[in-house]
Amino acid sequence: MIKYTLPRGTQDILPDKAIKKEYVLFVLKNVADFFGFNEIQTPVFENTEVFTRSVGEASDIVNKEMYTFLDRGNRSITLRPEGTAGIIRAFVENKLYATADLPYKVYYSYDVFRYERPQAGRYRQLNQFGIESIGTNSLYHDAEVILEMYHSLNELGIRDFYFKINNIGDEGCRSKYKLALKEYFANYLSDLCSDCKIRYEKNPLRILDCKIDSSKDYFKKAPKISDFLSDDSKKYFKNLLDILDEYQVNYEIDDSLVRGLDYYSETVFEVHVKSEEQDYGAIGGGGRYNNLVSDLGGPQLSSIGYSFGIERIILIMETQNLFDGIKNEILAYVMPLENTTSSYAFQVAMYLRFNQISTDIDFSGKSIKSLFKIADRKNAKYIILIGNDEMISNTVTIKNNATKEQVTIPVADLLDFFANDLIKEDNNENHHHDSKCSCHDNGNDNDHECTCDGDECECDENDNHHCSCHNH
Amino acid sequence: MIKYTLPRGTQDILPDKAIKKEYVLFVLKNVADFFGFNEIQTPVFENTEVFTRSVGEASDIVNKEMYTFLDRGNRSITLRPEGTAGIIRAFVENKLYATADLPYKVYYSYDVFRYERPQAGRYRQLNQFGIESIGTNSLYHDAEVILEMYHSLNELGIRDFYFKINNIGDEGCRSKYKLALKEYFANYLSDLCSDCKIRYEKNPLRILDCKIDSSKDYFKKAPKISDFLSDDSKKYFKNLLDILDEYQVNYEIDDSLVRGLDYYSETVFEVHVKSEEQDYGAIGGGGRYNNLVSDLGGPQLSSIGYSFGIERIILIMETQNLFDGIKNEILAYVMPLENTTSSYAFQVAMYLRFNQISTDIDFSGKSIKSLFKIADRKNAKYIILIGNDEMISNTVTIKNNATKEQVTIPVADLLDFFANDLIKEDNNENHHHDSKCSCHDNGNDNDHECTCDGDECECDENDNHHCSCHNH
Repeated sequence: MIKYTLPRGTQDILPDKAIKKEYVLFVLKNVADFFGFNEIQTPVFENTEVFTRSVGEASDIVNKEMYTFLDRGNRSITLRPEGTAGIIRAFVENKLYATADLPYKVYYSYDVFRYERPQAGRYRQLNQFGIESIGTNSLYHDAEVILEMYHSLNELGIRDFYFKINNIGDEGCRSKYKLALKEYFANYLSDLCSDCKIRYEKNPLRILDCKIDSSKDYFKKAPKISDFLSDDSKKYFKNLLDILDEYQVNYEIDDSLVRGLDYYSETVFEVHVKSEEQDYGAIGGGGRYNNLVSDLGGPQLSSIGYSFGIERIILIMETQNLFDGIKNEILAYVMPLENTTSSYAFQVAMYLRFNQISTDIDFSGKSIKSLFKIADRKNAKYIILIGNDEMISNTVTIKNNATKEQVTIPVADLLDFFANDLIKEDNNENHHHDSKCSCHDNGNDNDHECTCDGDECECDENDNHHCSCHNH
Repeated sequence: MIKYTLPRGTQDILPDKAIKKEYVLFVLKNVADFFGFNEIQTPVFENTEVFTRSVGEASDIVNKEMYTFLDRGNRSITLRPEGTAGIIRAFVENKLYATADLPYKVYYSYDVFRYERPQAGRYRQLNQFGIESIGTNSLYHDAEVILEMYHSLNELGIRDFYFKINNIGDEGCRSKYKLALKEYFANYLSDLCSDCKIRYEKNPLRILDCKIDSSKDYFKKAPKISDFLSDDSKKYFKNLLDILDEYQVNYEIDDSLVRGLDYYSETVFEVHVKSEEQDYGAIGGGGRYNNLVSDLGGPQLSSIGYSFGIERIILIMETQNLFDGIKNEILAYVMPLENTTSSYAFQVAMYLRFNQISTDIDFSGKSIKSLFKIADRKNAKYIILIGNDEMISNTVTIKNNATKEQVTIPVADLLDFFANDLIKEDNNENHHHDSKCSCHDNGNDNDHECTCDGDECECDENDNHHCSCHNH
């Protein structure tokens, strides 16, 4: 018999995990919204040339990792390996460079596809969240994008993150630098891995991304892009770092950082997470790209963007216990206590649902004991017991599943009961709000102090001013 | 020069449209949540046999419309043409039939792919929202799923919708019925379209779905499934209709409705929208399926689900003007009035963003007149003007873009200003809430009356009790 299984290298995201992912995306979308970005959605696949042109034919992605196939009309199409190229294609095709206000600021949450060798934590279908600010030469938009990323990570509560940042200059700087790299690596050509030999010919910058060779001694002594930057690029970089300093962004300059895609120029950056115990590596990255719009048929317009790897963010947030309280739950679980009360119980459940109270109900005729266990697994806040007495008197018996208090009330009072309960919840939340940690309230205040009075607050001024008390 | 274009038959969803789509999905997810469903996500593609086994080899989808291709490991994979099969595959593969509480209630929002001839309003990549209630024999779960669909459409405000509903019996009934259909259509075999000739051999039920032949006279006289139903199926159908009557669901029994997929049995239904002016056709549908879990390697477990076509819902909501107020907007648009105030203006913008106030800012040096036009296009509620005076005095001038009132206040008072503004908004919303139409408050009350005091309320008791006043 055939076994029906997951495609190799993919994953099912069952409800316990899906709610975490949707929580992460909710936070990221909200922050993007605060920063003036709007959502865009382009197709899951593009005509293949969109990626070969933009991502670059010398990249590993295009060479080995794309899901490319012929459709029934014999056109070569490719499942998107990343988000930017399709968005720029849409920007050009819809002539937004002429009709929209620039910079055109959009965010996306995309499944992307890479045919990689399956390994722990690497999937062939991944989710990326990213933003693009298309059509801007202002340094402030570099700062805006990086600070948006910074604020997103703070809002998620992620600890121990820092930026690696570099400036790889304009095309003029880079062509000089590429020549220098070729000259340098010519001496080590026979020692390079087979991929690097190809990179040497097609784009020697890529050699610096090599995961096989990069720890070798002569790699560390290779020429640095910083020695080839123009004065303008150097000034641009310094001014950007000054702004990041104002906001106390934790970064290190990494002059070996060139990023894996062909289209970057000037500012490039990655976010890494590294605790005292472990280096989790990069969870996102991006940069400025000057030629992608024109490469895909539009005018010359410089742009900047980043993307996060959502699976990696979820992994780190799980490690750092940042999903407390993020779980599937219901307000009410309705139990018909006899077969004869099913119809009345159904009416009560539907009444609650129609009034926006999340409710589930059982019709399986299981024992009360089993049903209480199910209610616990569903994280039900209240249990509504419906026996014959309740049916006859048009009442329900409602039990608080935490305190075990119970009370019998008329159905007509049910909504008031829940409304009062939600007001109580709200007050608790407002209380939290009053004790909100103000560390991030004013990012350019060097003398900030933590005013949070939460019991568990461990606000650490040296750790991106991260407040772990969850009160805000 | 190559033109980089959208893949044929696909669409870009730019921000003005994306916000409508996300609003629709937000409402649908909320209602699913009220009904006790949780989100699930499975891969965009599956091993091809998952669909050939479940959707059925005789279906048009499998025959002509699937995006099927070989991956780099020479495995046949297919972009999902619908949502249910992958979810059932995940349910079986993760052994949820043994470990989860049944029914396993999940919802999904999936891009699905069909290689159809491109035509107006038909895309090759579509979005479907659906729910599945897996592992239940209770009639109440049929009612729950249909009422969830019904409530979703009411929450979206959609008018003029009605259900087509049918019972197609169990396999016993259907095999007798198929024999009768074969006998009947044998007389018209030469007249049938070429697809129907194949359907005649493989699955004569499908002939009834034919879009080419179905208007012919002898189609209308073909045997009806209702004449072949067992007493149990008839009773099941009647009991379901009784519940729908209690909730005043607008439906018609359509005994030619068999649905396009192989896996249904007993209850099947579609939602159609038809106004006096126009028939918009089906916007969703579903049914009970008894064999899909076992077909994919699990135990025999009956299930029921539906899916909505999101593009079709958006189209109808646009026609019915149901997206009032659903637009991308910002609370604040910051204008640096001189080059020298850019840095201070950036700090003000970042201060607002860090405090959850959606803000955009311009650094292009455009004229004030142009910037005011941009603020309008961004639907900015307030404009924040930053000149030299403001910078020197650590203030901002804030202008209400609707009333044109303006005031200069210290930056330290900005958050209070916005907090007061949001409280005002909130009060307006509470006012709306007080005048909420109670038509849906108690679905089993035949004597309901509209208590809405909204000026524009046109609550129509004959039209699914739809209140069009948008107050609720």
